[in-house]
Amino acid sequence: MTFPGLMMQQPLTLRLCLERAETLFPDRGATTKTPGGMVRTTYGQIGERCRRLANALTTLGIEPGDRVGSFAWNSTRHLELYLGVPCMGAVLHTLNIRLHPEQVAWIANHAEDKIVFVDESLLPVFAQVAPHLTTVKHIVVMADGPLPPAAPDGALSYEDLLAAASPSYAWPDLDENAACAMAYTSGTTGNPKGVVYSHRAMTLHAFMSCMVDSNGIGEADVCLPIVPMFHANAWGIPWAAALAGANIVFPAQYMTPPDILSLIESERVTFTAGVPTIWIGALPEVQKGTCDLSSLQRVVIGGAAVPLSLIKAYDDLGIRILQGWGMTETGPLASLSRPLSTMDATMSREELQTVRAKQGLPVAGVELRIMGEDGVAPWDGKTFGEVQVRGNWVARTYYNDERSPESWTEDGWLRTGDVAIVDATGFVQLVDRTKDLVKSGGEWISSVDLENAIMGHPKVAEAAVIAIPDEKWSERPMACVVPKPGETLTSDELIAHLSGILPKWWLPETIAFIDEVPKTSVGKFDKKVLRARYADGTLAP
Amino acid sequence: MTFPGLMMQQPLTLRLCLERAETLFPDRGATTKTPGGMVRTTYGQIGERCRRLANALTTLGIEPGDRVGSFAWNSTRHLELYLGVPCMGAVLHTLNIRLHPEQVAWIANHAEDKIVFVDESLLPVFAQVAPHLTTVKHIVVMADGPLPPAAPDGALSYEDLLAAASPSYAWPDLDENAACAMAYTSGTTGNPKGVVYSHRAMTLHAFMSCMVDSNGIGEADVCLPIVPMFHANAWGIPWAAALAGANIVFPAQYMTPPDILSLIESERVTFTAGVPTIWIGALPEVQKGTCDLSSLQRVVIGGAAVPLSLIKAYDDLGIRILQGWGMTETGPLASLSRPLSTMDATMSREELQTVRAKQGLPVAGVELRIMGEDGVAPWDGKTFGEVQVRGNWVARTYYNDERSPESWTEDGWLRTGDVAIVDATGFVQLVDRTKDLVKSGGEWISSVDLENAIMGHPKVAEAAVIAIPDEKWSERPMACVVPKPGETLTSDELIAHLSGILPKWWLPETIAFIDEVPKTSVGKFDKKVLRARYADGTLAP
Repeated sequence: MTFPGLMMQQPLTLRLCLERAETLFPDRGATTKTPGGMVRTTYGQIGERCRRLANALTTLGIEPGDRVGSFAWNSTRHLELYLGVPCMGAVLHTLNIRLHPEQVAWIANHAEDKIVFVDESLLPVFAQVAPHLTTVKHIVVMADGPLPPAAPDGALSYEDLLAAASPSYAWPDLDENAACAMAYTSGTTGNPKGVVYSHRAMTLHAFMSCMVDSNGIGEADVCLPIVPMFHANAWGIPWAAALAGANIVFPAQYMTPPDILSLIESERVTFTAGVPTIWIGALPEVQKGTCDLSSLQRVVIGGAAVPLSLIKAYDDLGIRILQGWGMTETGPLASLSRPLSTMDATMSREELQTVRAKQGLPVAGVELRIMGEDGVAPWDGKTFGEVQVRGNWVARTYYNDERSPESWTEDGWLRTGDVAIVDATGFVQLVDRTKDLVKSGGEWISSVDLENAIMGHPKVAEAAVIAIPDEKWSERPMACVVPKPGETLTSDELIAHLSGILPKWWLPETIAFIDEVPKTSVGKFDKKVLRARYADGTLAP
Repeated sequence: MTFPGLMMQQPLTLRLCLERAETLFPDRGATTKTPGGMVRTTYGQIGERCRRLANALTTLGIEPGDRVGSFAWNSTRHLELYLGVPCMGAVLHTLNIRLHPEQVAWIANHAEDKIVFVDESLLPVFAQVAPHLTTVKHIVVMADGPLPPAAPDGALSYEDLLAAASPSYAWPDLDENAACAMAYTSGTTGNPKGVVYSHRAMTLHAFMSCMVDSNGIGEADVCLPIVPMFHANAWGIPWAAALAGANIVFPAQYMTPPDILSLIESERVTFTAGVPTIWIGALPEVQKGTCDLSSLQRVVIGGAAVPLSLIKAYDDLGIRILQGWGMTETGPLASLSRPLSTMDATMSREELQTVRAKQGLPVAGVELRIMGEDGVAPWDGKTFGEVQVRGNWVARTYYNDERSPESWTEDGWLRTGDVAIVDATGFVQLVDRTKDLVKSGGEWISSVDLENAIMGHPKVAEAAVIAIPDEKWSERPMACVVPKPGETLTSDELIAHLSGILPKWWLPETIAFIDEVPKTSVGKFDKKVLRARYADGTLAP
């Protein structure tokens, strides 16, 4: 560096988020649904509670770099962990409450968590995790009243710890490349893989999340992260909301569609984000028109492909769904399907729905390429390839995992395992997971496109497509279809519907009508289960 | 760092802006007004032209860290310098065309510029600069046609250089803390002081500029920077527009109010930023209602305090002025007077105008404090103190200048020289420059407040207040008032108007009616000139 800049270098740490919320927006804050009603906590109070938390953790022996586990719903206390734990230099490790208890314990042991914070309502589940923990020294129960009887022996009370701790604490100056949080990816075969987020990564992600063309979070927003805080940092919304001074609403364990709709109505939510499942489930209720969702401005859906039919159905109700794409390894927000102003000005409503059904443009700060069989694929709207990304909030390796080299290219891009095409406007459209593509007679069939076409049938609630072995074609697609409640549907009806939309050789010969598509812990279709069920390629049980 | 994050660390360099514009928005771009009409250049073309520029500069011997001067209006070619020069590792040094030629030369020599790019229309001015240059090896003339006759001997043609250079160039990987640009502050006594911007600082500033609660620049915008590109990086708009993929419009030398209004109308400008002068001058034209300004969404004004009367006058015409505050040393955007949503919901129109007349909330990424006589001042809306700021796009020292220690505190905050109060909502309101405050009988009088009150009189066009010596009170305020064209105004009329608004002891005994308030090169009131003129405290010439 022959001629250095002469600017200040303040570390990019999450303290920027915490201190901005507390200093400039002390009267805004978080609202959590509890058995006793809605509980409101201001950023002023949260700031003080975070300092008490830091003192309490210090007293319990937690040092910079130590991993602090959470086993909790989306709540204000979880937000305090999101802010207080990283700002004192420790590492928040969000444990996925929906995994098998032994897997949760494996993850906590692998990360060497020293302490775990557990929601009162999750104590029965956690009771199955606790016996397997090998590194955890303290369990802290987050509850409104006194320590509940279900608490394990020796457990501490979150509120007692905070009450006993001093409200004075000087946040340390941290290295921006130090870890602030950890999360493990699940849903893959083999053990979960750990991603270690840095302060720099998550602070930049928060800035990006407040940009007008990404999630656009601002002080006027009321944010409702439906996506769990134990899943990919709740898409970074807790930190972005604090940075912006936006209000934030937490559903805690009240996660049914009616719960969520009621929260949106009562709290006048403007921004929400979650997986498609919740919106699929909510559709009949929303169609009844009994809830007032007029405050909603941006409904971001990600974590799994959003069926076009869902986008259309909500569009008819005046609700615009934006599709986001990313993964635990990408911070997570990597792209967003916000139609460009030039599209708004020229496209029909149907065309715009199609745009919103794509995964969209990479957000500012993320570079994306499609690696086809012959190298980097052109953006021609038809050449398939694996999506590879690069950027400051993209992981560069897994934590202490010898499988890491499989997931990064030699020139340093993350191999996402997603297969996509990119059109001339730069909009990414996922066509499949690399492992879910169906290769029939040497040609690729996109299981996602086939699923979308099937879910476009008015009698279909959900559908998953997997590859089954075939002697002649090597693989053929098989459709697992869930009819809407009260509807009956035949294979012939479905094929007749598909024939008008898809090439003939894509049409599945094998269709199973099932009660429900198995889901992973984070609500994605779990095709592993279906593949095992239909491993021999027949409908025989 | 006991537990490092495991995320990628892509350097935060302006290449992010250039490559994003070229890759994702190749059909958007820049439009410049020229003698031959509007000239449109896409980001696709600009990307290629920047690579040609990098090759041409390399051929001319420019190496990483070398300073590259520009002496130019706001134009597409200047944008190419903004993007191409930093991305190749050199340092763009924007020279202020409005300074005295010898001062320009002093600045270029101090920065050791190796090459200077000059607009054709500025050749006559530059001819007075050139003889004094000691380090410049090449002069490049930016013109549409062949090298004009007014070009100095040995000058090169920008277009010829680009035409001859290869369009292939691999942008180097730069250190994010390397310098990308330089600018000198002017208007102070003594020699100008140099600020050296880093890539990291300006890239983060661009991200911030795209956040909804700051300038909110997005792909749907058509940005018109009225603020010159030779002044504080045109408030970072060129880089933010590229990052967002927004269109950008340049007025070049056509900077009169009618020129600007006509550009807003014809290009459907949505976002504009500049000093108050242009909007004071444009008001009569806008009031006539002959131009269509309906595309304007955000009019940011900064560089000097915006009179409340101006905000009211434009509000009556449906144009909302947002006041921004910052300085060459702060990137420049440090705060913005965007009323909060909670204010929008509860305040009257008059109250909101008053909010917009403040300097507003610090933008995300900037910390601000008010240092009073007794230490850090409370945010009580009445305690005065010097504004001190800290953040990643705030300078930490001047370039090679022994006066630097005066401008930073021992704990590392920039001393801005501005005096302000902060209210309980965190909104900053400048009351003066430290050196412009009037200390009368041991109490402070804000020259800015007094000027605003005077400019609120319907017959007043402009007013500047300075301190004059007084035997009894030590200092008294003196008002220098410019009546509107065709109006006559007496001291008695003005005092009668002020008596209803201000404390009696603030009322000036000495009022000079003058033809115009002297301005600095960047359009701010130049009180130095008035102080010299009235140094003895009388109206005698």
